[in-house]
Amino acid sequence: MSTELTVNSYFNDQVKSIGLGNSEGNLTVGVMAVGEYEFGTSQREYMSIVSGALTVLLPNESEWKTFVKGETFIVEANLSFQVKVAETTAYLCRYE
Amino acid sequence: MSTELTVNSYFNDQVKSIGLGNSEGNLTVGVMAVGEYEFGTSQREYMSIVSGALTVLLPNESEWKTFVKGETFIVEANLSFQVKVAETTAYLCRYE
Repeated sequence: MSTELTVNSYFNDQVKSIGLGNSEGNLTVGVMAVGEYEFGTSQREYMSIVSGALTVLLPNESEWKTFVKGETFIVEANLSFQVKVAETTAYLCRYE
Repeated sequence: MSTELTVNSYFNDQVKSIGLGNSEGNLTVGVMAVGEYEFGTSQREYMSIVSGALTVLLPNESEWKTFVKGETFIVEANLSFQVKVAETTAYLCRYE
């Protein structure tokens, strides 16, 4: 039996992720190269830093905040958020 | 500037990973589908569970041990270890 591990690529291959589902829910684990990105959500997202750091401007906030390894931020559905990546960073995203 | 995020695939696409390098070192973040695998190391590997669990038979050990989210096991260079995956699992591997 073959399980599909789907690889997605965004922003001219500067962000790549692998989708998975398990007892924790629907997830992607991915990597962001150095750069600045804007993401939109279609579900609530729990973004956890696996290695590195993300500096994030969350919806309706005016100050950028940096999240490091082990930290999580939440973005509600149907919103967009901006991310600055100063070093290549691995993340886990859980969708609700 | 484009950074290369290399995607690797193993075991008939049942294991996929994305390579990255940052202040933590040389890393891969990846996903293992349900199954049983044997891996060989060429460097010391620090394997951390990002989501899910891996049941591992480490080199020179006779008992399988299960590692869950947040836990890490270490395998020295030039050894092999066996892994049983009961649910799709994301991991971070750091190479030394």
